[in-house]
Amino acid sequence: MNDTIKSIATIMKDLDGILIFPHMNMDGDALGSSTALCLALRSLGKKAYVMINEPVPKNLDFLECGCTTNDDSVLDDVQLSVMVDCNGLDRIQGREEVWKRGRLKGCIDHHATKAKDMRYDFSRVEPKSAAAGEIIYNIIKALGVTIDLDMANAIFTAITTDTGNFQHSNTTSRSHEIAGHLYKIEGFNSKAISALIYDRRSKNAIRMESKVLENLNFYADGKLVVGRVTQDLLRECECTMDEADGIIQKMMSIDGVEGACLFKETDHSIRASLRGRSYANMEKAAAKYGGGGHMLAAGCSFYAPMPEVEELFIPELIEAVSRTR
Amino acid sequence: MNDTIKSIATIMKDLDGILIFPHMNMDGDALGSSTALCLALRSLGKKAYVMINEPVPKNLDFLECGCTTNDDSVLDDVQLSVMVDCNGLDRIQGREEVWKRGRLKGCIDHHATKAKDMRYDFSRVEPKSAAAGEIIYNIIKALGVTIDLDMANAIFTAITTDTGNFQHSNTTSRSHEIAGHLYKIEGFNSKAISALIYDRRSKNAIRMESKVLENLNFYADGKLVVGRVTQDLLRECECTMDEADGIIQKMMSIDGVEGACLFKETDHSIRASLRGRSYANMEKAAAKYGGGGHMLAAGCSFYAPMPEVEELFIPELIEAVSRTR
Repeated sequence: MNDTIKSIATIMKDLDGILIFPHMNMDGDALGSSTALCLALRSLGKKAYVMINEPVPKNLDFLECGCTTNDDSVLDDVQLSVMVDCNGLDRIQGREEVWKRGRLKGCIDHHATKAKDMRYDFSRVEPKSAAAGEIIYNIIKALGVTIDLDMANAIFTAITTDTGNFQHSNTTSRSHEIAGHLYKIEGFNSKAISALIYDRRSKNAIRMESKVLENLNFYADGKLVVGRVTQDLLRECECTMDEADGIIQKMMSIDGVEGACLFKETDHSIRASLRGRSYANMEKAAAKYGGGGHMLAAGCSFYAPMPEVEELFIPELIEAVSRTR
Repeated sequence: MNDTIKSIATIMKDLDGILIFPHMNMDGDALGSSTALCLALRSLGKKAYVMINEPVPKNLDFLECGCTTNDDSVLDDVQLSVMVDCNGLDRIQGREEVWKRGRLKGCIDHHATKAKDMRYDFSRVEPKSAAAGEIIYNIIKALGVTIDLDMANAIFTAITTDTGNFQHSNTTSRSHEIAGHLYKIEGFNSKAISALIYDRRSKNAIRMESKVLENLNFYADGKLVVGRVTQDLLRECECTMDEADGIIQKMMSIDGVEGACLFKETDHSIRASLRGRSYANMEKAAAKYGGGGHMLAAGCSFYAPMPEVEELFIPELIEAVSRTR
């Protein structure tokens, strides 16, 4: 059962010494919504921190307002540990011990996946919210805090990144209504925030992406597209694998494509990232090789050289995209 | 002086036989806002058409609801000719004669540029509206028409394309408020509309764009980026020049870039498309060679081979990006 926004705000008002836990491999929503909540709690005079154990991604560095810390002992007394944009200890790996220091535990998330064996003193999971940032926005309002520019930037980042700039199917009327309110906050400049998030790609990443997109292969009358990020390519372009994020979305923007597979070669394995547009069951294809995910976004790993993997797996993918609607 | 939304709606209510003129080289806002207005007028039982003389761009074909025509004599009696998303005969080239058939003339636009020598019976120009679609939305409400799914799709297309998916600096609170309302219309699915607009790129266009991005040159410590679309490249990739749209935006997404120049080679000339991020005066650079535009988006043409053009023009661009802020 979900606790109400109001009851969560009431609990938080009475507490001091709060640690906020965004999920590992933090993204715009995890860090944006955690930061917004931290700033709101601090505006009430409370001690609050966003507890992380990895560097803030470069494109989100502008969210740094002195909120994040990796110091386990930053607070003497942790009255509350709260997960934001995640639910479960496996999503805050390496921070489990400091999480346990919270006398109360809370969870604010929008992922439908239920955490096993987690007990919270309060929790609110809204799978229909496009971003955890939307829930945090409502909690901040319920706390009686006036949203300032830093909070607005953090909430906008959360919503715009998790909705794919208001284009993904998770976007709702409320996503736009909240964004519309943020524009009314003095100094708010969505263009500047968007430029910080999106317009700081490295030359090398652009070149690497271009080389992948230039060498795509098509199967099943163009319904399946396959690309590859090899270790050789990463070396040639002086890139790391995380800079390949976003390539599969570009592959999916090609006319007639129903399914995409991006093979990512690591030292020991080949990871296949899979996407479907409408009917291709990519989860089924992935599950056959020990992987998983959702129907339209899945993945699996292989421990064999690329040619063997392709020979084995591409026929499966052709079958997945060839099924009649 | 602008006429009010209410007075424009009152005028339209009394008329029948209405031709709507989007600007040439129609984009999502021109066709989307024209289509929405046409559908609203038809819902009131009026005869109305969107008058065009070029094919509807492929990525906007879903807006076709029987509204567009290129038949000059589609209406016996044209009581109103109204420009939408433009202002001036030079923006409706080839349709001037059918425009003149309107007994009354109107203009609904959001471009600040004033048309010379144009007399309208009513006009409303809102430079602060992100899209003409926002003005049309308000006119439709003032007409007392309930916005249906087709109108919603057309208005969403207008706003999302002209705001760069709600990321450009023209986006306002109102843009989001209107979008938020569209989501409440039964059947509205922004994801499906976005997929139609954005996810139907040709394989060849992706390959051509990749080749351009792979071969960029950087100057002035990476503050200037230069790319080229040659006739050879278009032939090799079996593309037309309009498929190069969007490449310069990708060039501008590179970290540290202040200015971008994309040279587009035609049979007889080389067109330079120019963009600046914050302080580079691209208009000034373009004006020196007979071009024009705005400070951060300009263009000019050269009638010389590519190496000569680059030798001549790149030093100008280096100067433009090298000025201290």
